[in-house]
Amino acid sequence: MQSEHSKVKALTFDVFGTVVDWYGSIVAEGEVFGNTHGIDIDWAQFALKWRSGYGPAMDRVRRGELPWQNIDALHRLILNSLLDEFEIVGLSETDKDHLNRVWHRLKPWPDAVSGLNRLRKQYIVATLSNGNVALLTNMAKFGGLPWDCILSAELTGHYKPDPEVYQTAASLLGLTPGEVMMVAAHPGDLRASQAVGFQTALVPRPLEYGPGGVQGVNAHPSDLVANDFNELADLLSVE
Amino acid sequence: MQSEHSKVKALTFDVFGTVVDWYGSIVAEGEVFGNTHGIDIDWAQFALKWRSGYGPAMDRVRRGELPWQNIDALHRLILNSLLDEFEIVGLSETDKDHLNRVWHRLKPWPDAVSGLNRLRKQYIVATLSNGNVALLTNMAKFGGLPWDCILSAELTGHYKPDPEVYQTAASLLGLTPGEVMMVAAHPGDLRASQAVGFQTALVPRPLEYGPGGVQGVNAHPSDLVANDFNELADLLSVE
Repeated sequence: MQSEHSKVKALTFDVFGTVVDWYGSIVAEGEVFGNTHGIDIDWAQFALKWRSGYGPAMDRVRRGELPWQNIDALHRLILNSLLDEFEIVGLSETDKDHLNRVWHRLKPWPDAVSGLNRLRKQYIVATLSNGNVALLTNMAKFGGLPWDCILSAELTGHYKPDPEVYQTAASLLGLTPGEVMMVAAHPGDLRASQAVGFQTALVPRPLEYGPGGVQGVNAHPSDLVANDFNELADLLSVE
Repeated sequence: MQSEHSKVKALTFDVFGTVVDWYGSIVAEGEVFGNTHGIDIDWAQFALKWRSGYGPAMDRVRRGELPWQNIDALHRLILNSLLDEFEIVGLSETDKDHLNRVWHRLKPWPDAVSGLNRLRKQYIVATLSNGNVALLTNMAKFGGLPWDCILSAELTGHYKPDPEVYQTAASLLGLTPGEVMMVAAHPGDLRASQAVGFQTALVPRPLEYGPGGVQGVNAHPSDLVANDFNELADLLSVE
């Protein structure tokens, strides 16, 4: 296994769902927020709808219906709709901004910090997320994620899975695409990175959409498949 | 002191000379490289000339005489001239590339890692260097520099002290300029950041140009002045 991947010098990670548990984090923080603000809603539905608004919002940017804006801004657009839909009224601007920044406070999956600390002994470990730089930087401090470098779609003016995001990431790392391995729970992200020459590792996260959620797993033959980041370190022969 | 700077949420650091000792690192590695490659030159002069070519090379990019290129490329342009000037012949492309990447292997000043580890307990600590992202990332791994985020002129298409570099950095951090403090050994860098609204801290590095070097120190009244990063942490009341 090692020989096949011996060219790899950097691992770039999808973040939402792959490194951090957005569903569990938003539900847990939402319930606390609801209790202190007198809001009695189904936070699991709220989290799932917030996340499901994300792809369509990026598509609007991609089609030019919205000018370029970062994920903080898109999350806020979606949040404004959800506040209407769930009939949540009376929040101050400070409250709304705090709630929107829950995406800066998502908790790592249990293996993420230990696995990244192993992987970074041998590789550059970087984010490669549609999340904006500030979001990813704050999240790393919040969760103790030991990134060597914060790379983001925001630096490219495109959103994944546009090829520019992966190409720019390799270029900023001073590497060829074949020297970079994309790590993600989402086959579409891996396929798009593979199309520009990245190596790929699938780390399925069956709980991404909560205990009742379903996530299809469609590994390509060329992907590494690991159940968590420590298993990925094992597959890459990292101590 | 704390009240005056209580708005600050992130510290952005100049790197060459402020965080790492380019002079001492290049002289030390040059001497080893010279011994193994049969090159007998004055590496102190070599290091000083390499560095002195850096400002004029950036100016050529700034004036549009050269297309945008990152510091690795500019360092290589200058190196090619120096190899001629010092009559160094017979190096392979691999040797030249290795020598050029000495800038990825510069050693932190003795206080840098411990000071940054203190400062990052309370602030986001980020590079804000003309060095490119790959250079800064590799240097951080080499020297154990605990950055929260790698920010670079390369992300902006401008070189410091152009205002776009500082403005883009604050924007990527999701902060107003007044919430960011630029830390540098070079008053020109601080003045340029101050002009767009950054707070500033001067950390003089009297040995930047070697034991015989001279560095003028011209603090503005509004700058913090600290002799090293631990003293800066003291001034900012970080434990």
